[in-house]
Amino acid sequence: MYLSRRVQQLKASPIRRLNIYAEEAAKRGIKIHHLNIGQPDIETPRVFFDAIANCDIKTVKYEHSRGTKELISKIQKYYERLGIHYNEDEIIITSGGSEAILLSLIAIFDEGDEMLVSEPYYANYNSFYDILNIKRNVVRTYAEDGFHLPSREIIEKSITKKTKGYLFSNPSNPTGVVSTKRELDDIAYLAKKHDFFIISDEVYREFVYGDRKAISFGSYNDIAENVIIIDSISKRFSACGARIGCIISKNKEFMEAIFKECQARLSVPTLEMIGASALYDLPSDYFEATRNEYDNRRKILFEELTKMDGVFMREPEGAFYVLAQLPVKDAEDFAIWLLKDFNIDNETVMFAPAEGFYATEGLGRNEIRMCYVLNSDDLKKAMRILKEGLIKYKKEVEK
Amino acid sequence: MYLSRRVQQLKASPIRRLNIYAEEAAKRGIKIHHLNIGQPDIETPRVFFDAIANCDIKTVKYEHSRGTKELISKIQKYYERLGIHYNEDEIIITSGGSEAILLSLIAIFDEGDEMLVSEPYYANYNSFYDILNIKRNVVRTYAEDGFHLPSREIIEKSITKKTKGYLFSNPSNPTGVVSTKRELDDIAYLAKKHDFFIISDEVYREFVYGDRKAISFGSYNDIAENVIIIDSISKRFSACGARIGCIISKNKEFMEAIFKECQARLSVPTLEMIGASALYDLPSDYFEATRNEYDNRRKILFEELTKMDGVFMREPEGAFYVLAQLPVKDAEDFAIWLLKDFNIDNETVMFAPAEGFYATEGLGRNEIRMCYVLNSDDLKKAMRILKEGLIKYKKEVEK
Repeated sequence: MYLSRRVQQLKASPIRRLNIYAEEAAKRGIKIHHLNIGQPDIETPRVFFDAIANCDIKTVKYEHSRGTKELISKIQKYYERLGIHYNEDEIIITSGGSEAILLSLIAIFDEGDEMLVSEPYYANYNSFYDILNIKRNVVRTYAEDGFHLPSREIIEKSITKKTKGYLFSNPSNPTGVVSTKRELDDIAYLAKKHDFFIISDEVYREFVYGDRKAISFGSYNDIAENVIIIDSISKRFSACGARIGCIISKNKEFMEAIFKECQARLSVPTLEMIGASALYDLPSDYFEATRNEYDNRRKILFEELTKMDGVFMREPEGAFYVLAQLPVKDAEDFAIWLLKDFNIDNETVMFAPAEGFYATEGLGRNEIRMCYVLNSDDLKKAMRILKEGLIKYKKEVEK
Repeated sequence: MYLSRRVQQLKASPIRRLNIYAEEAAKRGIKIHHLNIGQPDIETPRVFFDAIANCDIKTVKYEHSRGTKELISKIQKYYERLGIHYNEDEIIITSGGSEAILLSLIAIFDEGDEMLVSEPYYANYNSFYDILNIKRNVVRTYAEDGFHLPSREIIEKSITKKTKGYLFSNPSNPTGVVSTKRELDDIAYLAKKHDFFIISDEVYREFVYGDRKAISFGSYNDIAENVIIIDSISKRFSACGARIGCIISKNKEFMEAIFKECQARLSVPTLEMIGASALYDLPSDYFEATRNEYDNRRKILFEELTKMDGVFMREPEGAFYVLAQLPVKDAEDFAIWLLKDFNIDNETVMFAPAEGFYATEGLGRNEIRMCYVLNSDDLKKAMRILKEGLIKYKKEVEK
C-alpha cells in the first residue's frame, strides 16, 4: 500500500519528538519541568465551564459552518476595543488557530506555490506546507538581532513571482519577538508591491512586555484586501484544549472560499463555542493579571539564563517563549541527556531543540526554545537544574 | 489577489445551498419541515452533558494528538462487542467523521491520484476531492436497483492504475442502501487485486432495518492492511455538534502518517471527548430504542412517498435517508418553489435536490434526498405538504 508523497515528507513534531525519553524518565520516578510545550498552567476562567454547564441544550446539533452568531459578535466587540472594525461576515470560527491556518493555506496555495517565511518560525507551519506542497522562500533572522527581521531590501531578495503569502506569528512563537512598526510597514509595502497575502498569526497578542505594543495587521486599512488574521482563545484565555479559533479578513472572495471549506467540515464544537463566548465577556483586567504573571516569569528566565556561562539571548519581548543559544554543539543531544542521564534530587528539565524551527537544514543546532508556562518557583528550580546540567554535560559528555 | 485553483473549483454545499430561500420563508412566518439535513431531532443522552459538567478540570489543556486513552479504550470495547479487535494504536480520535476523511485522503492521495466512487454519494466528499485535486473514477448506481452496486466486472472497468482508494458510506448517505455481503466481497476482491485502500464510512452502522445487517469492513481480516474505517458519535448518539469521530486501521504505516497529521493540528476538544466517553457507556438497548424510532419514521416516509403519483423509490434499508425520483424535470426548481411560492396553513417542506450527490453532470435532476429526522407527526404533515405541492407544481408550474 503506497501512501502519498505529501505525508512521506511530513516530520514528527519536533516539539513532541522527545516525549518518549520523557515518558521513560517519568517511569523512573523523575519529575520533569516541562518547558518544551506552550501549554500554560494558568487556569481556564470558571465562566468557561459555568456557561457550558448552564446551557440549556437538549440535542448537540451541528452549528452554522461559520460558527455561532453569538461568538462572532463577541469577537467583533473584542476587536472594536482594539480600534478595529470587522463585519459579521469577516469572521469565521475555526477549530483552533491550526485549522484557521490550514484552511487559509488551502484557499491561497496550489501545489508548488511559494510562501515567504522568516526562520526560525513555528514548526507546525511546516506540516501544513508539506501537506499542501508549498515551497518556502526563506529569510533568516539571528539571535544577535533578537530575531527581528532584516531590512526590506534583504527580505525582497527572497520574494519570487510564485510568492503568494507571508505567514508569521506576532508576538512570535518560537522567538518571543514582537514585530516593530517598521517591520510591519516593510511587510505591508512588500505585500502590496508583490501582491501576496499577509497571514498574521496574532494569538499571543495579549502577551507583550515592557513598553512594547503588539500592532495588529488588522489596523493596516490600505492593504486590508491582503490581510488575514489568525486568532484563537487557546493562549488568550488559557483554553488550548477548547479548539476554538477564527479566521478574520476583509477580503470578500477569500472569506467566501473559507466558508465553502468550512461547509465541507460542517461545524466546530457547539459547547466549546458557548464557553468561548463567555470568555470574551471577561473584564479586560483579566489580561493584565495574566500578563503580569508571565512578565514575572519572563524576567526570571532572562535573568537566570544570561547568568549561565556561554548562553546567549536578547531580552524576550512577547508571547511566552524564548529562543536561546547554548554553548553546546547539539542541543537535541543535550536535551536527551538531561532526560536520560541527569537529575537533581530526582528532578530534571525539558525544552525543545530549536533545529525544528528552522527551514534551512543544519541551522539552530545550538539553540533551544523554552516556554515560560510554569510558576516562578518551578521556573527557578528548572533554571538551577539547567545550569548544573549544562556544566556537567560540557565537562563529561562534550569534553 | 489570486486564490488557489483548488478553492475556485469548490462548490457551495448542495445540502445547504437552499438555506437562503428557507431563511426568507421563515421571515415570512412560514414553518419549514426540514428534511434536507441529517440533523436528528433525537436528544443527546444526558450522560454526555453530565460527564462534562462533573469533570474536574481547572485548565482546558491540549490533549494527546491521538485523543484521550479513555475514549480510545471505550471505542475498543464497543468494537469488541461487534466481534472486532483493535489495538489502542489502531484508533485515532478526530474532529468528527469529516476530519477523519480529510486526514485519510491526505495520507493516501497526491494530486491527480484517483478515487473510485459509486454515485450518488455524500456530496461533502466532493469538497475534499476538490481541495486535494483527486480525480474520480465513477461507477453509477440506479434507483431501480435500490442504488446497490453493479457487478464486480462493471466496477472493475472504472479502476485505473492511479486508483488509490474507494470511499463509500455503509449504510449510505444519501441513498439509504445497506451494502450486502456480496457487494463488500467484490470490493474486497478488487481492493486486493488492484492494491487500493477501502475507506469505509460506517457512521450510520446502528441504523439498519428489517432483517438486514450492517457488515463492517473491520471484519475482513485478510485485507486488513487495505481497510480504513471512518467512525463518529454524531449520528450514533445524536451528538453531531460534538465533532468527535475517529480513524481506525490496522495498517501501521498509514496510522503513523495520520498521527503526524494529527500532531500538526494538535488535538481535538477536551470536554467533548469526556462527553463522548460517557456515551460509549450507554447500555446497548439505547440503540434499540433509537433504531425503532427511525424505523417507524422510515415506514411512514416509504408508505407516503410511494402513494404519490409518479414518485419512485425502493424500500430504504439503513441510515436515515431516502433518495426518491420525483415526476418533475428539475427537483431544485421544485424545492425553491416549495420554499418561495407554496405552503399549507403556513407550513412547507424542504429537501435536498439530489444533483449534488452525483459526480456526473446532469444526473439526479429529478431526484431528491430526504432525511427522516423528524417525529412521526411532523413527518406525516411534511408528506401531505409534499404531495399537495407536487400536484400543484405539476399543474401550475411545469405544465
